Amino acid sequence: MRVLVLGGDGFCGWPTSLYLSDRGHDITIVDNLSRRNIDNELEVQSLTPIRPIGERLRVWKEVTGREIGYENLDLATEYDRLVRLLEEVQPDAIVHFAEQRAAPYSMRTTHSKRYTVDNNVRATHNLLVAMVATGSTAALAHLGTMGVYGYGWSGSAPIPEGYLTVKVPTPDGDLEREILHPANPGSVYHMTKTLDQLMFAFYAKNDGLRVTDLHQGIVWGTQTDQTARDERLINRFDYDGDYGTVLNRFLMQAAIGHPLTVHGSGGQTRAFIHIRDTVRCIEIAITNPPPVGSQPMVLNQITETHRVRDLAKLVSEITGAEIANLPNPRQEADENDLVVRNDQFLALGLNPTTLSNGLLEEVSQIADKYKHRVDPTKIIARSTWREGMQTSEDLITEIETGE
Amino acid sequence: MRVLVLGGDGFCGWPTSLYLSDRGHDITIVDNLSRRNIDNELEVQSLTPIRPIGERLRVWKEVTGREIGYENLDLATEYDRLVRLLEEVQPDAIVHFAEQRAAPYSMRTTHSKRYTVDNNVRATHNLLVAMVATGSTAALAHLGTMGVYGYGWSGSAPIPEGYLTVKVPTPDGDLEREILHPANPGSVYHMTKTLDQLMFAFYAKNDGLRVTDLHQGIVWGTQTDQTARDERLINRFDYDGDYGTVLNRFLMQAAIGHPLTVHGSGGQTRAFIHIRDTVRCIEIAITNPPPVGSQPMVLNQITETHRVRDLAKLVSEITGAEIANLPNPRQEADENDLVVRNDQFLALGLNPTTLSNGLLEEVSQIADKYKHRVDPTKIIARSTWREGMQTSEDLITEIETGE
Repeated sequence: MRVLVLGGDGFCGWPTSLYLSDRGHDITIVDNLSRRNIDNELEVQSLTPIRPIGERLRVWKEVTGREIGYENLDLATEYDRLVRLLEEVQPDAIVHFAEQRAAPYSMRTTHSKRYTVDNNVRATHNLLVAMVATGSTAALAHLGTMGVYGYGWSGSAPIPEGYLTVKVPTPDGDLEREILHPANPGSVYHMTKTLDQLMFAFYAKNDGLRVTDLHQGIVWGTQTDQTARDERLINRFDYDGDYGTVLNRFLMQAAIGHPLTVHGSGGQTRAFIHIRDTVRCIEIAITNPPPVGSQPMVLNQITETHRVRDLAKLVSEITGAEIANLPNPRQEADENDLVVRNDQFLALGLNPTTLSNGLLEEVSQIADKYKHRVDPTKIIARSTWREGMQTSEDLITEIETGE
Repeated sequence: MRVLVLGGDGFCGWPTSLYLSDRGHDITIVDNLSRRNIDNELEVQSLTPIRPIGERLRVWKEVTGREIGYENLDLATEYDRLVRLLEEVQPDAIVHFAEQRAAPYSMRTTHSKRYTVDNNVRATHNLLVAMVATGSTAALAHLGTMGVYGYGWSGSAPIPEGYLTVKVPTPDGDLEREILHPANPGSVYHMTKTLDQLMFAFYAKNDGLRVTDLHQGIVWGTQTDQTARDERLINRFDYDGDYGTVLNRFLMQAAIGHPLTVHGSGGQTRAFIHIRDTVRCIEIAITNPPPVGSQPMVLNQITETHRVRDLAKLVSEITGAEIANLPNPRQEADENDLVVRNDQFLALGLNPTTLSNGLLEEVSQIADKYKHRVDPTKIIARSTWREGMQTSEDLITEIETGE
């Protein structure tokens, strides 16, 4: 298949591009390098030494003989170039990762709130309009988030895959209706994914676009079989307070002797997936698109759920790290249960990498190996979700790297 | 109260500004004159001879002694000026009409689809961010649309005011939940109002903003007591295929001897409200805001429902006009029932102007009086909702104005 990977230089996009290329697909990456630019703005860098996109692509060709195309293009502002690209490439599938994807960053400043909405909504809408304008019948797979659902909303009922069957009381008795699961986003970032859902529903209904929305859990892990083939292909690993996701943050903290930072009681239950499974899910999604004329297909892209404090305990047991409880910046329940359906991916053949078999490798091959690159002043989350919110001081300001 | 009226030069915004000024409120209009600019783009003009905003405001002062402030400001792109304005005015209430509001225009071209989303989403989001950034506790009233609900979704149950109580099946029995009514927008324009709803819900929850979303039906009528005081204060009347709403279009068609254009069978039932009631509803909304910390209040701003073909028949009976059935550009059921709750406005004291007592005045004082200004080539709706859609030829190309 000819596949466009929008946001193909990012944490999920890069390993997806290599995986799909390795599987024989013809890949073109579209990326405006905004994630690298935000690193500059935040004065932080990936724990792992990622290479410039041009070097990445040269090395991939050197190692595998396979060529990946690349276009530096801003989807939110360069509509005409996007149209020309769709006409040139005529993709069979489009994978859309091209959105600002950190909740804390989206809450950081008025600028970052506005950037997140302006960038994400326009990128998605421009893409949909451009697909209609060029008559594209490509299968579109979009990275959504489990965060569209909110948590603890439906009691003991598991979170369904996108659509919820409800009963609507009417004078003639209850009416059964399938609805898009009510949205309860916890940040401006998550909110943009709830806006995306409504845009997908409209363009699927009005123009017959074929869309799969992948409500992904928290990704952990760094490497895939492809990114591990050469150090110059290494994937990014974010550990900072804005972009570092919880499990990767714990692993890095353990490696440098920093306490594991748990927000609130740590009773929040979250859904997880390894990056190796993310890339597999993407291929499954684009090779099994919904038919023209159907509503968007929604898949929950997760493989297991854990309470945050249980994860901290697990990492602490492996590594001996201490645990520190910090104020929770989010407006959310301190404790929640979470049961999530992911039947569709399992039925389509996904065989998950679980925490129990991937965690130690991650500690030794990534966190320990690159800990000398950590800036300890970037670890604590400082985005304030709302007026007057508490944050924590730095817990350590110097690290022992053992070197 | 100090009130900012965003979009205060438009069809609803102008009479609202005058009404609130007349009622003793201190009004500042914010408008980038985009509606007048779109008239230029479409090469059409209001049936009524509207005056430049500066003249309108001078005449209002001449007639009433009251001053209305005015700021030419683009909410979607001039965030910093918006913040300064909020700091200067310190409004008690903000009325937000500042969005592209025509469904056919929003479907017209790739440009108009993108403009509608970029403008509407950014205007609303910038406003919300600016309110949070300046600590504004103003009551925000936003013009939504009945179109967020879709039609015919809930069987014989009336459309509730924003929130729907449903039963969610769980292993422990049905759970009762109040949800935002599922969205089923029929155009890109309507879609933007469904996106607005999710942004309001988030900022109400996270930052305690007080928001009232007014899901308005189709507005008819032209004048209010205030706009009728001097011809130079006259409100706009749109009759063209993009911006003309159905009842006003019929009245103008009848006046010039054009057949009344009914799309499809005319079996679509729609909700209506007179412009005189719109302005009253706005004052009711801003003087009865929801408390801080509550979810957005949703009011259905409608006073009666009619089938389109019944309206055509009514106008035909009054005026003798013929009826012409044209292809329907929209993806919608040809026939639908519509029962809409509007209890809250009635309870708050709204006393509606009904079709039966306002129609003849409208025909004689507006449609007949200004029919010499009609361009008959602008009457037929030509926006194509989707690839390959049919539109109609002009039914008449010259008019008899009787002059």
